[in-house]
Amino acid sequence: MDLLLRGALLPGRTALTDLLLSDGLVAAEGADLPSGAPELDVGGRLVLPAFVDAHCHLDKTLWGGPWVPNTAGPHLQDKIDYTRRRRAEFAVPSADRIEALLRHVASLGTAHVRTHTDISPEFGLDGFHAVRAAADRVADLVTVEQVAFPQYGMLTNPGTAELMAEALRTGAAQVVGGIDPAGLERDPVRHLDVVFGLAAEHGVPVDLHLHDRGSLGAYEYELIIERTLSTGMSGRVTIGHGYALGDVSGPRQAELVSGLAEAGISVVTCAAHSDPVLPILAMAEAGANLAAGNDGIRDLWSPYGDGDMLARAHRIAERAELYADPEIELALTAATHGGARALGLPAHGTAVGVAADLVIVEARTVAEAVMSRPSSRLVLRAGVVVSR
Amino acid sequence: MDLLLRGALLPGRTALTDLLLSDGLVAAEGADLPSGAPELDVGGRLVLPAFVDAHCHLDKTLWGGPWVPNTAGPHLQDKIDYTRRRRAEFAVPSADRIEALLRHVASLGTAHVRTHTDISPEFGLDGFHAVRAAADRVADLVTVEQVAFPQYGMLTNPGTAELMAEALRTGAAQVVGGIDPAGLERDPVRHLDVVFGLAAEHGVPVDLHLHDRGSLGAYEYELIIERTLSTGMSGRVTIGHGYALGDVSGPRQAELVSGLAEAGISVVTCAAHSDPVLPILAMAEAGANLAAGNDGIRDLWSPYGDGDMLARAHRIAERAELYADPEIELALTAATHGGARALGLPAHGTAVGVAADLVIVEARTVAEAVMSRPSSRLVLRAGVVVSR
Repeated sequence: MDLLLRGALLPGRTALTDLLLSDGLVAAEGADLPSGAPELDVGGRLVLPAFVDAHCHLDKTLWGGPWVPNTAGPHLQDKIDYTRRRRAEFAVPSADRIEALLRHVASLGTAHVRTHTDISPEFGLDGFHAVRAAADRVADLVTVEQVAFPQYGMLTNPGTAELMAEALRTGAAQVVGGIDPAGLERDPVRHLDVVFGLAAEHGVPVDLHLHDRGSLGAYEYELIIERTLSTGMSGRVTIGHGYALGDVSGPRQAELVSGLAEAGISVVTCAAHSDPVLPILAMAEAGANLAAGNDGIRDLWSPYGDGDMLARAHRIAERAELYADPEIELALTAATHGGARALGLPAHGTAVGVAADLVIVEARTVAEAVMSRPSSRLVLRAGVVVSR
Repeated sequence: MDLLLRGALLPGRTALTDLLLSDGLVAAEGADLPSGAPELDVGGRLVLPAFVDAHCHLDKTLWGGPWVPNTAGPHLQDKIDYTRRRRAEFAVPSADRIEALLRHVASLGTAHVRTHTDISPEFGLDGFHAVRAAADRVADLVTVEQVAFPQYGMLTNPGTAELMAEALRTGAAQVVGGIDPAGLERDPVRHLDVVFGLAAEHGVPVDLHLHDRGSLGAYEYELIIERTLSTGMSGRVTIGHGYALGDVSGPRQAELVSGLAEAGISVVTCAAHSDPVLPILAMAEAGANLAAGNDGIRDLWSPYGDGDMLARAHRIAERAELYADPEIELALTAATHGGARALGLPAHGTAVGVAADLVIVEARTVAEAVMSRPSSRLVLRAGVVVSR
């Protein structure tokens, strides 16, 4: 099934071009490609790579249901306790709600999602089954990868590590997670040893939540960098949030950025609330990979989140006070190529030979698209129009 | 011209009601009001007060024009120099662009705007004339109040104070502005004496930009509080941005909040970038008024800004990490009642007797409306539907 896109504007160009999509790939690109396939004139609109949400929490979502006032206390532990307590009351997880959310994010242009699914002995692998059931229903729209995420602790929540091993052994989870090895788990070395041990045993990537700030968080960055280098896991380790990188001093930050680049570790930012902003420009310069995610989307944990990765790129740029076009483009790169790199996906973009997962919007430049966040989008997945 | 709104949901209620709008006011409210006027069934949607943008910069906008990459440097003075230099190149100010922007914000539900218009000898009162021309064309949609804003300095830009006096004397400006009395102007006492002197001479309110942070900004807060109390200007003084209030220590912050409440000074936040977040909860508790504004909207200064005060309320809530419904409501209050209070507008809201300036959206609660930011809005101005 071929499709010839006429009058397309590619990022960084000013002249329009045509794109031939064939067998799910971008098969050819050039001005005035010969006819032959069904044609779609996109009228000079900008063609962006599909978005990658490298960090979300589909299993907890309340998407599509009635408004639920959040009554959790202000601290991390309050939110954890609250979410745990009200899980049954709100029938979390719900495959139907997760499916509704996945259809929503796909319609906004997201083609790939990595989601952190809660794991704990009290509810076992329920979340994984619900997310997988939903993902199977929308497999032609979006790919979904699940992280075994010990939201309620691993060392501090007995039985969780064994369940994580089960989730990885059975394939329910494809990535091993972790959470604040020091701040929450109280034993950073042992926490990381278990996580990296599971990764080695099951041959899976690592994706750790790290909220710990300042010198404590920076120390944990070092532990993760050391383990990544010593285990040969370069390119397969991701740190989520990683606030410490945004709140240590300049020289210390530069050390960590350099360590991340050397070890091939990705950091995923959601740029939420007033959390420390990561050093986007320094990371780009050093070649340290930045990805982007929505975090929770209207869920038990938080009333925030709209699922839109173009809005998330805007948020990242806005929080980092990026004003120049090339800097604003870095925010979209995080939401596209950066996410693809973090997830270990094949080449991503608009070049010939890559998957034709595209989002087409009314804008003359990438920076304008990030600032305007057009709600009208033509979304293609594997060369097929899936939303307009 | 009467209008009877059927099936309206008022903030804080669960039962639907009817609203009779007459002569521009909310004339009656109750279940099953008798027929007689033209009716509009709003289907259980939520009725919010119209939005007030208490801080923007209409004169500099590029709204509706082609994308303009921003090439300013990163510092405040870079942005000032850049904006000044490129003003002529981009035909700023443009009454047509300002009108386009005002129509846009009105369609989103904004009924009142206070805008800071640049004033400097090199271009005199051009900005005031352009903004007034645009405002006159949309007078049935939105009110526009102009602040004589010395963006390029007052003490440090000779001739500016005299022009400010002229703008106030001729009525071109209705409010006297100021900017960083210490950080930019280098002489906080004399700067404030001139500003408060102009206010006294022309009988106008004061609205000062204050970006200065930490102990310096806190000291300037004190100077402003002292002058407000000694001149009897309570209720007529506003501080824009006021970052220092968000970055001094708790006890110092509490002192300033209490001083603001005592002096009847409003603070306007835009919650932009990673600027310090104001203590919303403490201000509400102390009765210190918080208003909200868009700041620049796609202008020479900044590529950011979309003009939407409901999105701005969301940003304020998100930056302040407000999760509970009553806290999220405070963010909308800043964008409605708080703005009305800062601007000295008559009673604002949905109660009987007040102006029927309303925004009706699909939501069950104010918190849901702030989180969802519905793009579909029914907007009424003085009891007349102006956008749907």
